Amino acid sequence: MDLYFNAYILKMQWSKKHIISIKDFSRAEIDFVLEKSARMEGLLASGKSTKLMSDKILATLFFEPSTRTKMSFEAAMLRLGGRVIGFSGVSDTSIEKGETMLDTVRMAAGYADMIVMRHPVEGSSRLASENVDVPVINGGDGANQHPTQTLLDLYTIKKQFGKIDGMNICMVGDLKYGRTIHSLVDALKMYDVELRFISPQNLKIPAYMTKELKKSKIKFEEREDLNVQGCDIVYVQRIQRERFPDPQEYEKVKDCYVVDLGVADMMKENAIIMHALPRVTEIKHEVDETKNAKYFQQARNGVPVRMAVLCLVSGVDF
Amino acid sequence: MDLYFNAYILKMQWSKKHIISIKDFSRAEIDFVLEKSARMEGLLASGKSTKLMSDKILATLFFEPSTRTKMSFEAAMLRLGGRVIGFSGVSDTSIEKGETMLDTVRMAAGYADMIVMRHPVEGSSRLASENVDVPVINGGDGANQHPTQTLLDLYTIKKQFGKIDGMNICMVGDLKYGRTIHSLVDALKMYDVELRFISPQNLKIPAYMTKELKKSKIKFEEREDLNVQGCDIVYVQRIQRERFPDPQEYEKVKDCYVVDLGVADMMKENAIIMHALPRVTEIKHEVDETKNAKYFQQARNGVPVRMAVLCLVSGVDF
Amino acid sequence: MDLYFNAYILKMQWSKKHIISIKDFSRAEIDFVLEKSARMEGLLASGKSTKLMSDKILATLFFEPSTRTKMSFEAAMLRLGGRVIGFSGVSDTSIEKGETMLDTVRMAAGYADMIVMRHPVEGSSRLASENVDVPVINGGDGANQHPTQTLLDLYTIKKQFGKIDGMNICMVGDLKYGRTIHSLVDALKMYDVELRFISPQNLKIPAYMTKELKKSKIKFEEREDLNVQGCDIVYVQRIQRERFPDPQEYEKVKDCYVVDLGVADMMKENAIIMHALPRVTEIKHEVDETKNAKYFQQARNGVPVRMAVLCLVSGVDF
Repeated sequence: MDLYFNAYILKMQWSKKHIISIKDFSRAEIDFVLEKSARMEGLLASGKSTKLMSDKILATLFFEPSTRTKMSFEAAMLRLGGRVIGFSGVSDTSIEKGETMLDTVRMAAGYADMIVMRHPVEGSSRLASENVDVPVINGGDGANQHPTQTLLDLYTIKKQFGKIDGMNICMVGDLKYGRTIHSLVDALKMYDVELRFISPQNLKIPAYMTKELKKSKIKFEEREDLNVQGCDIVYVQRIQRERFPDPQEYEKVKDCYVVDLGVADMMKENAIIMHALPRVTEIKHEVDETKNAKYFQQARNGVPVRMAVLCLVSGVDF
Repeated sequence: MDLYFNAYILKMQWSKKHIISIKDFSRAEIDFVLEKSARMEGLLASGKSTKLMSDKILATLFFEPSTRTKMSFEAAMLRLGGRVIGFSGVSDTSIEKGETMLDTVRMAAGYADMIVMRHPVEGSSRLASENVDVPVINGGDGANQHPTQTLLDLYTIKKQFGKIDGMNICMVGDLKYGRTIHSLVDALKMYDVELRFISPQNLKIPAYMTKELKKSKIKFEEREDLNVQGCDIVYVQRIQRERFPDPQEYEKVKDCYVVDLGVADMMKENAIIMHALPRVTEIKHEVDETKNAKYFQQARNGVPVRMAVLCLVSGVDF
Repeated sequence: MDLYFNAYILKMQWSKKHIISIKDFSRAEIDFVLEKSARMEGLLASGKSTKLMSDKILATLFFEPSTRTKMSFEAAMLRLGGRVIGFSGVSDTSIEKGETMLDTVRMAAGYADMIVMRHPVEGSSRLASENVDVPVINGGDGANQHPTQTLLDLYTIKKQFGKIDGMNICMVGDLKYGRTIHSLVDALKMYDVELRFISPQNLKIPAYMTKELKKSKIKFEEREDLNVQGCDIVYVQRIQRERFPDPQEYEKVKDCYVVDLGVADMMKENAIIMHALPRVTEIKHEVDETKNAKYFQQARNGVPVRMAVLCLVSGVDF
């Protein structure tokens, strides 16, 4: 009875809400999405068709290129019986003629029932959400937030281990610029986890984040060597050329960690390797066939999670 | 009875007709579309789903970039239960391999049930329409025509004031190259309106147009200062860099008129500001929140108007 | 009874099969697709809607630009009640960030129920098909194979003449690099046909192919002059700049054959001209209106053929 009531209350809070930052959500709200995502995955697996979003249009506004996030949102919307309009990259759009981001988003809000957007400027999704009357989902705003990535990361962990509490999670690579890592850490702060940060000296996790972790009483360690022993999850973060102000800084560190069969062997029996993809050289292809490699399944999890998110923001019951 | 009969006759005339230039239509035909558009807007507002275009495919052939027109047609088609294929920009198409526009359109006509196209060359849509057996809608042919823009402009006026006759309409900006303005003036000639043209000396409305206005006995004045007093509608036309043969000519005039709160205050209580968008600097963002600003609603009106047009050209009754 | 049984067996063989190269198929399998394509064309002509692919998603992964193949597959999927996600060109994708083709395809396999891909590297589709668990259709891998083009070519011949056996088929143009020609010859080897190859000296059909023809006891001749007398089909192959390693070699031969009204007049009464399109200068526009010109209908035939292929690879009965 209480549980049912809670779910009802949570759904009400979700209804028509924008998804801008994982920080906007409580643990209860996140757990609610994960539960709903599992229901969506069951629905997908059953092969039954859903019409939950029929007659609804999603606008995918990708001011910055993306394949994975865009195709995954599109697949989610189509699996729900909905339809999609949008653009990818600004070379073919009015932005080239000097239109502001806000005008473009306002225009799209006149055509669609909800918007997912990616834009290079931090805070752009928040600004957009405050100026239109349809739900806005942040599909990445520069180095800042990418909340549905975090939700699918958490979903992947929970699906694998049945829980998030108690996990020992190791993050490897660019912990300074990697927004995926920042969002995930923001969410994990609300759980009872242990963290290990492995990065070169100049790509350490920001000091303000370790400060917050201490405040949240999350146990963590920082190190430079690729020691993943004892971890349940190894989350590899690509070192992204495009986030580096100085290309020389990038060249110095780009290949500093490579997860190969040796590293995989070092891991616990049922530990998993995650990666937001695209992967370049930081995980060797030989690792793909190991039972630890979960990054392709992780990407696949984006569909049920985004299906759940699309329904929740538009107040569709399921 | 007579009215009913007229509607029947007009629909017959519309059926399978191409939409190339607003000049191809009589006032009765235009009024018929506006009436049908209102019905479509009611349908949209009711939230009821339509299957008027189910199993039909629209090809959107944008040889020249566009966001607004393309997304608006796509939304219209999807709202009707139809589907869309197409391209935007020629960099990813066979046109790069040297294919002619006509071959590309003929090919698309083999795949789709109707075509909307934008192409930089004047007359291209007309040429296309004469060579394929599916309806062709002109989504802009260079500096020439963009008839559905004119229809949504007229619809916006009629929706706001309940009529078009009797309006005092002021057009501001590039009146020489602006095809939106030219098409709108062509249509307004069939109504009982008063026009005011405000432009710099070198961007005046073409002489052949003022001659036609005189012939149609439309009252109009031309001026250079931004005086919008007494007007019901102020239609702002962006000065488009891409239409200028000489970039220096563009630099001289690009910021000559800026509609700000001061200009808005000068307007009549219920007067409206229109703009085909994208807007750059010619309307300040501070104006967006005034009750005069109707340009975003105007863009939004593109959907019901284009829904009506898509049904009419394909002979679908509604 | 036997026929019915054969069809059943063949469908079983087709079910979940990838379409990588026309060489993977027997004559019986090809004839089976052509028969199914005719059924699809009947279905299209009847105007009845099909839901054979409803709730299914096709991913169109065009690592290399294409209009015709992409739009034709999209139209086929939509005509079947299915939906489409995908990209065209790599400038807006993760490939720019260094992702491998295989990772991109694996990702898409997590979102879609089947994949059609075009990629500049020979063998890429085969490699992809061996690494994902959804059907992969080769939409062109460099200068190698484009099997659905061959199927629609054969379908066009069969539709025109009621059969393929007994035809005298002349191929004109770039017979060295033209993958369309190579695939078609590979298929025609299984029929009782006569071939005539017309090309400049440096663009002759490869020696290994003529060797295979001899082994298959197919009568053929090679010549340099544009003599198409006595042929039932003249298949014109564009000389493609993008396939030439040396641009000077291209300049020398690019306009060596031009099919004009004179050439059309030389042809048999009911002979047909085919072309995979896009056409540049190798067929004059004056020829388009002759009854011999079948290239636009040929392109159109891509839709029913690809509808049949999409159903067959995904095991959908029809």
